Amino acid sequence: MTPPITLASDFGTPYPAAMKGVLLQRLGDVRLVDVAHDFPRQDVPTAAFWLRETLPYFPPAVHLAVVDPGVGTDRAALAVRVGDHALVGPDNGLLLPPARRVAEREDAEIEVFDVTYDTPASTTFHGRDLFAPVAADVHEVGVDAMETLDHLTPVDADDYVDLTLPEPTVERERGATTVTGEVLVVDDFGNAITNVPGDLFADCEEVVVDGITVPVVDAFADVSRGERLLTVGSHGYVECDVNRGRGDKAFGLTVGDSVQFSF
Amino acid sequence: MTPPITLASDFGTPYPAAMKGVLLQRLGDVRLVDVAHDFPRQDVPTAAFWLRETLPYFPPAVHLAVVDPGVGTDRAALAVRVGDHALVGPDNGLLLPPARRVAEREDAEIEVFDVTYDTPASTTFHGRDLFAPVAADVHEVGVDAMETLDHLTPVDADDYVDLTLPEPTVERERGATTVTGEVLVVDDFGNAITNVPGDLFADCEEVVVDGITVPVVDAFADVSRGERLLTVGSHGYVECDVNRGRGDKAFGLTVGDSVQFSF
Amino acid sequence: MTPPITLASDFGTPYPAAMKGVLLQRLGDVRLVDVAHDFPRQDVPTAAFWLRETLPYFPPAVHLAVVDPGVGTDRAALAVRVGDHALVGPDNGLLLPPARRVAEREDAEIEVFDVTYDTPASTTFHGRDLFAPVAADVHEVGVDAMETLDHLTPVDADDYVDLTLPEPTVERERGATTVTGEVLVVDDFGNAITNVPGDLFADCEEVVVDGITVPVVDAFADVSRGERLLTVGSHGYVECDVNRGRGDKAFGLTVGDSVQFSF
Repeated sequence: MTPPITLASDFGTPYPAAMKGVLLQRLGDVRLVDVAHDFPRQDVPTAAFWLRETLPYFPPAVHLAVVDPGVGTDRAALAVRVGDHALVGPDNGLLLPPARRVAEREDAEIEVFDVTYDTPASTTFHGRDLFAPVAADVHEVGVDAMETLDHLTPVDADDYVDLTLPEPTVERERGATTVTGEVLVVDDFGNAITNVPGDLFADCEEVVVDGITVPVVDAFADVSRGERLLTVGSHGYVECDVNRGRGDKAFGLTVGDSVQFSF
Repeated sequence: MTPPITLASDFGTPYPAAMKGVLLQRLGDVRLVDVAHDFPRQDVPTAAFWLRETLPYFPPAVHLAVVDPGVGTDRAALAVRVGDHALVGPDNGLLLPPARRVAEREDAEIEVFDVTYDTPASTTFHGRDLFAPVAADVHEVGVDAMETLDHLTPVDADDYVDLTLPEPTVERERGATTVTGEVLVVDDFGNAITNVPGDLFADCEEVVVDGITVPVVDAFADVSRGERLLTVGSHGYVECDVNRGRGDKAFGLTVGDSVQFSF
Repeated sequence: MTPPITLASDFGTPYPAAMKGVLLQRLGDVRLVDVAHDFPRQDVPTAAFWLRETLPYFPPAVHLAVVDPGVGTDRAALAVRVGDHALVGPDNGLLLPPARRVAEREDAEIEVFDVTYDTPASTTFHGRDLFAPVAADVHEVGVDAMETLDHLTPVDADDYVDLTLPEPTVERERGATTVTGEVLVVDDFGNAITNVPGDLFADCEEVVVDGITVPVVDAFADVSRGERLLTVGSHGYVECDVNRGRGDKAFGLTVGDSVQFSF
């Protein structure tokens, strides 16, 4: 049984099907698993967040991830190895947050390879013409033998674009704590997911959010329909939510907004 | 060849990918088939309708279905066996309409098991942390050996939440028939699908719907573009449709609305 | 290893799941790959365009494609063989543009078969009740033995509906060239994709589009954010785009619009 290939992009449909065709053409019976193809267009940090929160749940796999505002320019292409996982995509920071999370979980090193490539058949669809073929190359030789591919060259941390998702600040004064975080993403439910780790709120029953007191609960259904709540989401971060409604609307929050929690 | 696992939820993307990762991590080369992940948010009856209309077409499978407004509360988790099929999901009625339909088709009994579970890693994503692992357990021992799992306990009909989709009423008086039904769901085409069985209209060429006479036809194209029609949908129920348009708008109908047919 | 089955339709969800159930019920462990199920409703030319641009990337496969405004009428059903590929779907032109493209790539003949069929179980869901079973039949006997199926009859070009996507006109006068094309589709990014082959613009740095001068570039990022550009898309046709914006809005173009390029 060979490892699966996961696919993630901001391509909508039907572009991802062409990538799947290329992979099946090359690899025959490889298993393909979609992570998502509806990431917000060309929004690298949001895609990096979601990849960080989903890829670590997979068994060893080749992860093909393409959110690529610089497609057609001279931006480089990367292949990253973390233990038995490989990630393939553009050199714009996208692959690093998920690679670090996989590294933590598997206690593995991150090795980054630059991909040397000829001009692809198209200037606008490197997912099909560059990244899918590279993912097929890696799958074919095996993640543990990536370095045997002539077009992969190990590179140092100075030689690729890194991306670090923002961290919150914590101030403690006379028994009061103020955490200033940021909305990293808004999910399909309208939950505004911040970068504030849930354990900071471990013993809080309620927290003041931008001046309004909101209960901290375990379940949406712990408050009435339409009521605001804070909860620690499945990714371990504090979310601003509404039971059976949209947290982003109720709290007036959108991606990148600063949000202040006091308790 | 082991049975496939079908996945259905109201999770949008990319949350279902984490469930797939968990299943592949546990089961290696299991085949995963998406039913839908865009069911209306937390709308258990609509999801139960669609599961009832799709799951019976599958060969023996483990069906993982999560629409779960009570996630994180003390609502129970269920595993249901119907012949060679198993369904896994929350105890809120979701699994019973599809289980009954599979039971009819396969002339099988419905056996319901309560799932004993420890506190999952998250309070908001039991799809990943509870239901996917249970589906993997059931798949691993085999549907015919579900009862050998220590954390599954057979329960009686009094011990779980049932859900019955509403039935229409039929009045016949002096040769005239009036059927009062309800819109169960509106599909992506805008077809307003009622709970009125199509055979009630077997010999009708036209029917009065809420005061307006509408033709009963076999094909959308039997009426002009933009015209209203009634037809018996692929699930066997009467739909209020428009040829190349949205029936819900033309008839002014939404989910849960009562609708009266006279002929 | 048997060929995969690709699925494409305008069904949204969850209807495609019923087709997958039927295929798995019949064929056991066949690999299913979605091309797209969100083609614009009942828009045969747009779906034909996308199938033409995606199916040729697949290895030999059975391609099930259903965009079918005539469902339930007496329109015929077709199975088409092109080399090692088969396409199955309604007789409305949908299958011919992708079949011709596969034929070019593989230097193969197109053979068209009419499908004789009994009244399907539903009048509105032939994807499930007619086309998926035919695709299963073809997959079972093998593409190279399609003609052994009793319900398939070879037909001549006069006996099925063909569809040809429109071609642009080119006028050259005193060193100036005017190309009059048409917007074939608008993709999810808002790129307005025309029928003008990219090689016509091979040496142009800028082109006048409906009176406005626009640069011809290789990469979206070659112009500033929000600026208009022309580029040759991954399918080889000229697109009217905007860097990080929607080309259709900026150029005021929608599907079927005529567009004039001068240089």
